[in-house]
Amino acid sequence: MSTKESNKSPQPPIRFDVIARDGEARAGVLKTRRGEIETPVFMPVGTAGTVKGIRFEELETEELDPKIILGNTYHLWLRPGIETIRACGGLHKFIGWERALLTDSGGFQVWSLGALRKISEEGTHFRSHVDGSPQFLSPEISMEVQAALGSEIVMAFDECAPGNATRDETIKSMSLTTRWAQRSRSRFDQLQEEGTDSGRTAATDQVSGAQAIFGIVQGARHLNVRRDSLAQTVEIGFDGYALGGLSVGEEKSAMFEVVNEITPEMPDAYPRYLMGVGTPEDLIEAVAAGIDMFDCVLPTRNGRTGQAFTSTGKLNIKNAQWATAVRPIDDRCNCSVCRRHSRAYLRHLYLSGEMLASILLTHHNLAFFLDTMRAVRQSIRSGVFPKFRREFTERLNANGE
Amino acid sequence: MSTKESNKSPQPPIRFDVIARDGEARAGVLKTRRGEIETPVFMPVGTAGTVKGIRFEELETEELDPKIILGNTYHLWLRPGIETIRACGGLHKFIGWERALLTDSGGFQVWSLGALRKISEEGTHFRSHVDGSPQFLSPEISMEVQAALGSEIVMAFDECAPGNATRDETIKSMSLTTRWAQRSRSRFDQLQEEGTDSGRTAATDQVSGAQAIFGIVQGARHLNVRRDSLAQTVEIGFDGYALGGLSVGEEKSAMFEVVNEITPEMPDAYPRYLMGVGTPEDLIEAVAAGIDMFDCVLPTRNGRTGQAFTSTGKLNIKNAQWATAVRPIDDRCNCSVCRRHSRAYLRHLYLSGEMLASILLTHHNLAFFLDTMRAVRQSIRSGVFPKFRREFTERLNANGE
Repeated sequence: MSTKESNKSPQPPIRFDVIARDGEARAGVLKTRRGEIETPVFMPVGTAGTVKGIRFEELETEELDPKIILGNTYHLWLRPGIETIRACGGLHKFIGWERALLTDSGGFQVWSLGALRKISEEGTHFRSHVDGSPQFLSPEISMEVQAALGSEIVMAFDECAPGNATRDETIKSMSLTTRWAQRSRSRFDQLQEEGTDSGRTAATDQVSGAQAIFGIVQGARHLNVRRDSLAQTVEIGFDGYALGGLSVGEEKSAMFEVVNEITPEMPDAYPRYLMGVGTPEDLIEAVAAGIDMFDCVLPTRNGRTGQAFTSTGKLNIKNAQWATAVRPIDDRCNCSVCRRHSRAYLRHLYLSGEMLASILLTHHNLAFFLDTMRAVRQSIRSGVFPKFRREFTERLNANGE
Repeated sequence: MSTKESNKSPQPPIRFDVIARDGEARAGVLKTRRGEIETPVFMPVGTAGTVKGIRFEELETEELDPKIILGNTYHLWLRPGIETIRACGGLHKFIGWERALLTDSGGFQVWSLGALRKISEEGTHFRSHVDGSPQFLSPEISMEVQAALGSEIVMAFDECAPGNATRDETIKSMSLTTRWAQRSRSRFDQLQEEGTDSGRTAATDQVSGAQAIFGIVQGARHLNVRRDSLAQTVEIGFDGYALGGLSVGEEKSAMFEVVNEITPEMPDAYPRYLMGVGTPEDLIEAVAAGIDMFDCVLPTRNGRTGQAFTSTGKLNIKNAQWATAVRPIDDRCNCSVCRRHSRAYLRHLYLSGEMLASILLTHHNLAFFLDTMRAVRQSIRSGVFPKFRREFTERLNANGE
């Protein structure tokens, strides 16, 4: 784009409308330049430009049909690298996915490197997991990478306190996240102005504008630190707000104390995103607290290690008891895997080290998570979410297998 | 089945009709109890009950659409074991594949174990690759396993001479194969009479009869030994005839001397199957000699190691020159992978160790092999096979990438 005028978004980056409420739970529609997303929504994780073990054609079938998936700044920046992705026209074109993308900022990934990284005011020095080379990631670099990726939703670059961090440590970490949020916002705005967003096309401009950016609320388990973080993040101003730094080693009760207390205090008019969470029951509990968006590696990662999520609880496909079981993974599931294949066959594939075990379990698990969220949305719209929540949880804990 | 009468096949096990000829090349139809198979045909290999890296739903799409796949006696007998497969209703039901299956006898697999096996008149003693346990496979056991699997086409249990075997060694090995072929035929006939064929149902009986059995011609590179083997195998009498013991380390010229000399001498009215061969150019050369059926692991195995088969030759997806190549694997290919994904993306997936690299390359390679065979059949029916063969080979060797 050559003139400053042409870089102006003709529309707001995203629009969010709550269309039904049931207690704190809400059903809404998030309008992005690459399609509308009904919330509450589960976003499959596509770390390195692929939702592991599943083709996009499969994702696009009615059976799965996620309207948005994740990509990861840290992984894609290190490999294949931003120059490659830019040369291929941005992340959508590079991977062949036309629907919406949310990109994580890389903050959590470099934090997860533990001893391999060193955090300073400026950013984070670390060694690449690909080749051990020294690397440096900062709020500005993360924004530049996410502009090159061209995702619909960019995440601010944040710092995460450990689940067991003291109050003082947490305040220090949270303050850094606030300063990084401010720097993320500033650099993001410059980049939008400069037109470096690879995902923006004439076609997307017809629908809505440039990239959106979400801020991240930190503060570990300390509610008042969380409240300060929320206030400071809202003060900067974002298109949506996320709860970060949860499901990082703290007890589940501590996580839900934060989710239950903080979510209802998050701005009502903006989407609320609980990062990296969780099991199907976690999702439903968080929806009850007012969360709209989720991502989690559980359906894909656990699929690759032989664990299936079912309406009656988790199933370990390796168990000897399934050796000749002609039943599907889940009698209540209508996915293509459950329609066709038995537990006995899946167990055989897993024990034989066949790739198809991962492919089929991943497919079923994604179907279960995405179906569950469809049912959640429907129940909120119909005003029967509490009943749905009770019945779903009871069935899950019956563990009938 | 309770009475002897009910075990009688109401129809012959298979029917084979040649419907067009072009030189030695022939196009035909092989009618099995689970569908008609147009020949020349390439059969994807499903060793352990899965064509590695691809779902049956994908195989069944028009884009691939193989009418028959392979299963393997050796692998399935060791894991999950015949009792499991029988308990699940035979191999078709166990894996969820309703189309035709051909099962290899296990003879080649135990022979491939080399130092781990000991061959006697009675059969082959070896150690399981799964758990190291001592095992024994014989013509009789192979027939029992293949009856339990319930495949449409059973292979006789054979012994393979090394590619560089002397004439005396080869005669000794081939004579054993003949005696094993006789024992295979006898035990197979008993089992059919006893009704132990798991793949036979009331529905399949409406179409054609019990299992078919193919004999295997051995004799390494020694043409007169091959001729004796062929005569002895035909003397026993089978529903089809295979050339075995090729592509096992001999030079390609030696393989084609056997294929070109022996194939036209194989019974004209029966299907001719070249086992374990080969590249796309090998397939076309063998079709020119009169071969009707092929199986080979190349499209699937090479897909998993980053090699794509294209209309202009082999492509190594790892090469740095594809780092930002937005072109598909093969410009002339209309498969779903080539329609959607670039070489750059596939390279990234492969270098990142992503399962999707194997999934997509396997899909493309199978599409290329199956498309090629469709084109071969069409060209024979249209009487233009020599022209097709010349143009295909020229393009392949142009190596334009």
